[in-house]
This record gives sequence, structure tokens and C-alpha cells, in this order.
Amino acid sequence: MDYKKVDAKDIEFLVSILDENRVFKGDSINNDFSHDEMGGISHMPEVLVEAFSTKEVSSIMKYAYENMIPVVVRGSGTGLVGASVPIYGGIMISMSKMNKILEIDEENLALTLEPGVLLMEISKYVEEFDLFYPPDPGEKSATIGGNINTNAGGMRAVKYGVTRDYIRGLEIVLPNGEILNLGGKVVKNSSGYSIKDLICGSEGTLGIVTKVILKLIPLPKKAISLLIPFPNLDMAIGTVPKIVKSKSAPTAIEFMQREVILAAEEFLLKKFPDNSSDAYLLLTFDGNSTEDIEKAYENVANICLNEGALDVFIIDTDERKDAVWSARGAFLEAVKASTTDMDECDVVVPRNKVAEFIKYTSKLQEQFDVRIRSFGHAGDGNLHVYVLKDDLTDDAWKDKIEEVFEAMYKKSRELKGLVSGEHGIGFAKKTYMLQQYGYEYVNLMKNIKLAFDPKNILNPGKVCE
Amino acid sequence: MDYKKVDAKDIEFLVSILDENRVFKGDSINNDFSHDEMGGISHMPEVLVEAFSTKEVSSIMKYAYENMIPVVVRGSGTGLVGASVPIYGGIMISMSKMNKILEIDEENLALTLEPGVLLMEISKYVEEFDLFYPPDPGEKSATIGGNINTNAGGMRAVKYGVTRDYIRGLEIVLPNGEILNLGGKVVKNSSGYSIKDLICGSEGTLGIVTKVILKLIPLPKKAISLLIPFPNLDMAIGTVPKIVKSKSAPTAIEFMQREVILAAEEFLLKKFPDNSSDAYLLLTFDGNSTEDIEKAYENVANICLNEGALDVFIIDTDERKDAVWSARGAFLEAVKASTTDMDECDVVVPRNKVAEFIKYTSKLQEQFDVRIRSFGHAGDGNLHVYVLKDDLTDDAWKDKIEEVFEAMYKKSRELKGLVSGEHGIGFAKKTYMLQQYGYEYVNLMKNIKLAFDPKNILNPGKVCE
Repeated sequence: MDYKKVDAKDIEFLVSILDENRVFKGDSINNDFSHDEMGGISHMPEVLVEAFSTKEVSSIMKYAYENMIPVVVRGSGTGLVGASVPIYGGIMISMSKMNKILEIDEENLALTLEPGVLLMEISKYVEEFDLFYPPDPGEKSATIGGNINTNAGGMRAVKYGVTRDYIRGLEIVLPNGEILNLGGKVVKNSSGYSIKDLICGSEGTLGIVTKVILKLIPLPKKAISLLIPFPNLDMAIGTVPKIVKSKSAPTAIEFMQREVILAAEEFLLKKFPDNSSDAYLLLTFDGNSTEDIEKAYENVANICLNEGALDVFIIDTDERKDAVWSARGAFLEAVKASTTDMDECDVVVPRNKVAEFIKYTSKLQEQFDVRIRSFGHAGDGNLHVYVLKDDLTDDAWKDKIEEVFEAMYKKSRELKGLVSGEHGIGFAKKTYMLQQYGYEYVNLMKNIKLAFDPKNILNPGKVCE
Repeated sequence: MDYKKVDAKDIEFLVSILDENRVFKGDSINNDFSHDEMGGISHMPEVLVEAFSTKEVSSIMKYAYENMIPVVVRGSGTGLVGASVPIYGGIMISMSKMNKILEIDEENLALTLEPGVLLMEISKYVEEFDLFYPPDPGEKSATIGGNINTNAGGMRAVKYGVTRDYIRGLEIVLPNGEILNLGGKVVKNSSGYSIKDLICGSEGTLGIVTKVILKLIPLPKKAISLLIPFPNLDMAIGTVPKIVKSKSAPTAIEFMQREVILAAEEFLLKKFPDNSSDAYLLLTFDGNSTEDIEKAYENVANICLNEGALDVFIIDTDERKDAVWSARGAFLEAVKASTTDMDECDVVVPRNKVAEFIKYTSKLQEQFDVRIRSFGHAGDGNLHVYVLKDDLTDDAWKDKIEEVFEAMYKKSRELKGLVSGEHGIGFAKKTYMLQQYGYEYVNLMKNIKLAFDPKNILNPGKVCE
């Protein structure tokens, strides 16, 4: 790629449209901006700028487009596949300061906000209006812009769907600086190709999201969780298709293993309600009628007991809720803290294939003599499987992770799964996506990329390149 | 466009891969295939073929691509904007015989089917398994392939969303004959650009849908409708934002006027439960608990009475249900039968702007001295407004419809609405989409079209061209 290097003139331009204190270069750029949450892939931007407005983003893009400078956009940097790493240097635009909630519209059940608003702020804000933004990814400090760019799913996808299902409208800046408004506060839309849905999940490669209109729904009045211990993971996960088939419509079905719970206890210095069993299902139910919720969870509790569950804990006190959900929220960090380095596989498989996939990863653990930890969304088939480096040398680790991943993704394809359920392709999973889709499919993606970005300056080297 | 005309050699090829009795030419092609439900735009295909399999569709496309012959795909032909009219002649592929339901998967709540299955067959089929396919467009004889290509919405969008929200996977044939599998039986997907979501709503211009995997949900156990008469339409529609804001979550909120009800009564020779008021709201509620449903509809009934409703009829007997829903289903046909010709506007506006838009169409009716009839989805802001030709001459009609539409779409843009909620752009609404989006936006769509179809042979002249 023949990109122009950022020089003094470019810096001068950036300073002229932003304030001097929003343009960082050289040593004044914090090293954190060279990588995302997973690490592994890393490269420093040549210049880091903070945007305050759509107009600023547009001006920067126009300039970068004319001058052939690569641009990468960054939210909280909580990604796991290197999508926000500026592998060709250039300009990094931080969207963290475009973080205002602009309007709540109760007549249209719509929330308008800037892309840098954090996920945790959204739920808190709308709940005060008795409204609900259902998507619930584990990483609450991610920005909504980041969530849109990975089509993040989270735990409630079983019942409520994923981020895509809650995007009513987007304002975007194209690579050449043009501003487009996609969708709006409308419930239906059949007005030409859905560019909005193409932006969702495009990992910052097609356009820059500068404003968001989210769909809200009425807040369910009641919610309850069940923690259900099983003698082993097979039995726990094997029960899930029976729960789905029972039509009891839980909001979430998570699975977790004892090792991960112990790691979280150690990490948080906080006890989980129970850690005596090998494997657990954690289910939630929500709705407006206690009677309905009770009927649903009794039905599911009975299914679990019939399938060999050891007990059923109702998580109804604030203390228990806090213990369970803070642990669930800390799993990734806890696993990471337990080893020297790790990489993750975020496949999604049909829900009745989860057990087979997890059983296979146990086999791989023995076969390759490597620690593998997993937890995730049993109810929607999206698994987070972590392979841990521990005391392997860098070279041995590089070889091992390649072999283990190769095997895992092959298995996922056999089960008609897909490479990524919610973390995306970014830089790290490009090979596996190509293996899955083949040349023709990925080439079509490349052509779509060129339709948006003929000079290939926006987040180059990601997804399909 | 420099397309090749279909000649004897092409026919010979088509006969060689299909049976002779599935290749129609000249006078053996029924005139119905030259237009869709709205009429207006019309052109005969040079040859009409019936496909039985993906492989056949792929072979036809490969041949057409190599030989530069335009191809248009057709389902039931119930479209309203000319999207399936072969304006450049060429080959028309009828998908009506690819109409098998292939599999219901209760463990993954997924239905796999061919694109020619009719909407009415889907709901009937899945309900036997206590499952539910929520999208509910008025035209039940449309194919699911057609519904996907317009991202059809229907009445239940208020609560359940639109067709897009229920597409888990698609098999498509690209213009060059390549076959791609998009998505699958998976709940989440962040594996590259969502081509599946681009196909949805692309009106047969980007690829041909040859297989579909739909998401199902548990069938709600109970449903009830309320028919609520108001002194006038303003009061009826003015109540809707208050209903939305009340968070009572109705499944559908339809509005209808006396004239349309009378037309349906005459058309069906069947009485509506009440026709003494000027305007009505028709609401449905569904769920699993009678108590919850009753609480919700009592709440909404009170809101309506406070806002001036004249009465509240509960539609709970089979006879009343049939009378109401058969009338609602016949509105389009009834309005059509009441005049010589008509054209329709399918805008979608924010829900709290419906009243203002409808009031404006009443003004246009007087200003332009033309009959305008409307009904539609008050709960989701998607309006179906019909301008009737009556005894106007062809020339006068052409001028009038242009002026009236110009005014209506302008108003819709002012209200931050969009050109089409669910019927699409096709051929008829291209100008209005361009007026709405502007050159840059439509040009991006054109580039996307070229990414899929560099020779522009699949349904040329539609949507963004």
C-alpha cells in the first residue's frame, strides 16, 4: 500500500481544525493506543486526534482521502481481534469524547446518541424512563460505536437479538468525508440497499459512525436468575437444546466451568454462591408477570433436574445477584490474569451443536497439552474459547495456537458454525474467514469495501483484505 | 444498455438444462408476467423459465452472464413498484415452483425453505409446532423470497420487527452464477460484512435467493383485538403516540377510515362489525398470560376513551375476527376495484408524525381535486396512501399523480420519513429515492450494485439506476 507518511504539514492541518491539545504525536501518544484488549497485534498511529463533532471527522477524512493517509477509528479499545489497531500507522481518530446522549424520544421509543457513549451508561440512562436497551455484551465499558461495528451480541441475544436489531438510524462519514444519514426514527425501511446494516459489523472499514438512533422497548418489570449446578459440562450443555425446545423463552443461558469460577473468585476476591460442582448453567428470565416468569423457570428447573442437575439456586437477593453477575463480568479478565498470554476463538454454532464443540475443545486440550478455558452463551451458540500460553516460549506458543485454532475452526465449519459470533474478524481472524467462505465470497466483500473506499484509506488491512 | 437479445440458440440452451415444458416464449407467456400487482409499468420478458433447483438457477445465470442477457426473478408478482418487471426483456426466472418447506428444526427454532413458499403457508405450517413466524404483511400470497427482497414489514412490526429480523441464513446465486451461503442456523454473526442483510431489501438486483433459513419464536398462547371507533381520523391517529408512550406493547396498531371499510364491505359482500364512525383504530395484543393481555388492553382502552374514542369493541368471537381481518386483508383490492387506476405511496415516518402526514394528504385531496384513500400501520408509521384516477384522462392522471406524489414525498422528507416502509423502490419510486438521498448516497448504492453485478445483468434499471 502506498500511503503517505504523516508530516509536519499534516499535523499543522489537524491542529488548525482541532485544538492543539487534541492532536498527539510521537511520545505523547499513550502506548495503549497501539493495541486492543487482546494485545498480540500492535502498531502505533503516527498521530492521534480526538474528535468532538461530525464536522471535524468529515474534515479529517476529506483531508486524509485527498492526501492518501490511512485512518483508523477507535472507541474504548476493548476489541479482541485487532480491528482498531493502526497497522499502517497514519491517523487514529478517538471517538471517546463524542460521548453525549442527545435525546430520548418516548413517543417513538428512540434514543439518539453519539458513538462514544459507553454501553453501561445507556442501560442506566434509559431505565430511568422505564425503557430497555436489550443488547448486553459482557464488556460494559465498550462504546456503542464499537458495539455497532462488531454487531455485538451479548447474553440476552437468546430472547432479544443482537445490536443490529436495535439500530434504527446512523449518521456516518464516508472515507471521502461525505456525511450520510441512514435510516432514522422509523420502524420499517425498504428504501434502497440497507447501508446501515452493512455498516453494522464492518469493523470501522466502510464508514465512521458519528451518530446513532437506537430502538428501545418497554423495560420488563421483573427478572430472575437461576444458577444450576451439573456434575459435568457435557450434561449442562446437553440440556440446552431441550430448554430451547421447551419454548420457555429464557432471556439468557450462560454456561461456566468450575475452573473459570475459581479464577474469577481469585481475581475479584469475592465468593461465588457455589463452586462445588464441575459445571453450571446460569439462566435468566424476564417479563411483566411474576406468574409467567415462575411458570417458565419452574418448567426449566424441572427439565434440568430430569437431565441430572444437582440443585437449582434461585438468584433473587441483591447479594447473590451481585456475586453472580460480577463474576460473570470478570471471566475474561480473570482468565487473562491467570496466564502469560492468550488468544480466543469466538465461533458461533447452531445451538444444538454447542456440546459437541465444547467436548472437542476438551480433546484438543489433551491432544496439544495446552490449557483451554471456555465460557459463553450456550443459549445462542456463541462460544468464547480461550487458549492459554502459560509457560510456553513465544515460538512454541505461536506454533501451538496456530494448530489449535486451525483444528477448532475446522470443527466449527463441520458443525455449520461461523468464525465469529460477536467479536469480529479484524486482523486476527482473516485467515479463518477466508477458509470458511472461500475466495469468491471474500472477493465480493473486497469489492464492497472498494465501493465505499476506492482509495482504501479507512482501516486498511482488516476483515477481507 | 447493450444487452444481447434472446435467440434460438439461447432457447436451445435453456431447454437443454430445463425441461421443454418449463421454457415459455412469445405468445405462450401469460401477459400477467409483464407487470406486477400495481400495473402501470409493463414489459414482456423474451423468455420465461421455471426453476426447480439452485443448480438450475446457477446454470442460467452463468449463461446469461457470459452472454450479456438481462435476467429478472419473479415470485408471486404481488409487488407494487414494478421491481419484478423485465423492463429490458431478457430471461424471467419464475421461482414459484421452488416452493418446498425443507426442514423444521425445533432445537434451533429454525425453518429452512425454498423461496417460492407462500407467506400464508409458513404461518400455518409452523403453528402446528407451537411456533411463530411473526412478520405479517397484508398480502399473504406473496412468496417468502419476495418478502425478503422488499424487507416486508406488515402489521406486527410494532412489537416483533420486520422480515430482516427473522432471516438467519440465505443461499443466493450471484449474477455470475456462483452460489454463496450467508449466515446459517446461528443466532449471532460477526463474520465479515453482512451480505445477507444487503440482499434483504435489494429487490432482486444483487443476487437470487434460492434457500432461506428463518428464525422462529414460541407461539404466543393468546391474542385479542380491539376495534376502537373515533369521531374522526385526527383523533384516532393522534392517540397512537400516547399508546406507544404508555408501554403497553400492542402487537399491531392499524388505522382505517369509513370510506375504506365501506369499499371492503362492498368488495367482499360482508359486513364489518361497525361502520358508523368516521375512523377506527384496530389493535391487537398477544402473550401467554390472559391477565397480562387484559391489563395491557384495558390500559390502552382507557387511553383511547380519554382521547375521545366513541366505544371499544372487543374482537373475541371467531365471527368478529373473521369479519375484521378479512376486511383488513381486502383493503387494497377493494380500493383498487373502486377506481379505474391508482398509484400508491408507502412512506414511513416517525410514529408521532403519522397524524400530521395524514392530515396533509387530506389537504392534497382538496387542493388537487383527486380521491385519496389511506390505511396502514399507525403503530409503526408506515402508511399506504392511494391516489385514485377515477375518470381522469390518461394525460391528466399522469400530470396529477406526479404533482401529488411530489408534494407527499416532500412532506415525508420534512417529517424525517423515508420513501418506502415496505414496498420498495423498484422502478416506480427511483426519482423519489434520489430526491431523498441525493447523488452521493445513490451513487454508493450503484457502486454496491456493481460489486455484485459488474455487467449489470440482474434486474437492471431498478432501485438505484
